[in-house]
Amino acid sequence: MDTQPSIRPAEREDRPAIWAILEPVLRAGETYALDRDLTEDAALDYWLGTDRTSFVALLDGEIRGTYYLKRNQAGGGSHVANCGYAVSEKARGRGLARAMALHSLSEAGQRGFRAMQFNFVVEANAAAVHLWRSLGFAEVGRLPKAFDHPVDGPVDALVFWRDL
Amino acid sequence: MDTQPSIRPAEREDRPAIWAILEPVLRAGETYALDRDLTEDAALDYWLGTDRTSFVALLDGEIRGTYYLKRNQAGGGSHVANCGYAVSEKARGRGLARAMALHSLSEAGQRGFRAMQFNFVVEANAAAVHLWRSLGFAEVGRLPKAFDHPVDGPVDALVFWRDL
Repeated sequence: MDTQPSIRPAEREDRPAIWAILEPVLRAGETYALDRDLTEDAALDYWLGTDRTSFVALLDGEIRGTYYLKRNQAGGGSHVANCGYAVSEKARGRGLARAMALHSLSEAGQRGFRAMQFNFVVEANAAAVHLWRSLGFAEVGRLPKAFDHPVDGPVDALVFWRDL
Repeated sequence: MDTQPSIRPAEREDRPAIWAILEPVLRAGETYALDRDLTEDAALDYWLGTDRTSFVALLDGEIRGTYYLKRNQAGGGSHVANCGYAVSEKARGRGLARAMALHSLSEAGQRGFRAMQFNFVVEANAAAVHLWRSLGFAEVGRLPKAFDHPVDGPVDALVFWRDL
């Protein structure tokens, strides 16, 4: 069994595997401010949009994670990257999120981005908050009760920033 | 000469007048993180997108301002509004920005939004920063050197928030 994930650009043929990861994340609605009833096509068109580069992460030959990388703003804000990540429930606790995070920081730097920003990290998502802090991201914003969590109710969302 | 602006929903026929306001704002690239070379159609499709409600503000019978109102996030973030505003150079200093701001806060409240967030207020845009503070917006985030200002160089962008 591989212990190191491999990460490569997503291909059109990966859409079903990516959807298998995204669907439970979207339907739960606990981590992303995306509509919970987004259709498969709409979700994949978003995740694999032409304005971003998307990747898949494999463990033991199976796609178990995915992320996208794009600019966070246009114009004078184009030097700041933004990413979204998702991990299969089957692969939790195996370091896939961290591996994708490190990969994305490296990719962003190679593409000339000078910083990375996450606009909306749900504070109740403890694993994400812990990961970003451990990778040197600073909390540069706090959005009060900006997220209606389906279980926890209104919770803050955080803005995280790291220079590259 | 009217001293009170009138504000109404934008119509398709308003596109040329709206573009006359947006074009110099976009080309200057000093206030919005939007591509400076955005075409007229792309800019108007954005400003008048189906995901938002757009308005025009008239002074003396002429369209001199425009703004849009939309949700800032989807899913669990849908209760927070977001707006963008632009004023014609011909109407600066006549209270049009403030009139549109007040109008947008009222509209957002009527539509059931519980807060308003601006994601990216360029700090060098002193008029905007002053306006939002005077209307009770709080700085809930500061993005370090997030905007490459064409004149001032790298400047911070602010995240502003107000409950409704």
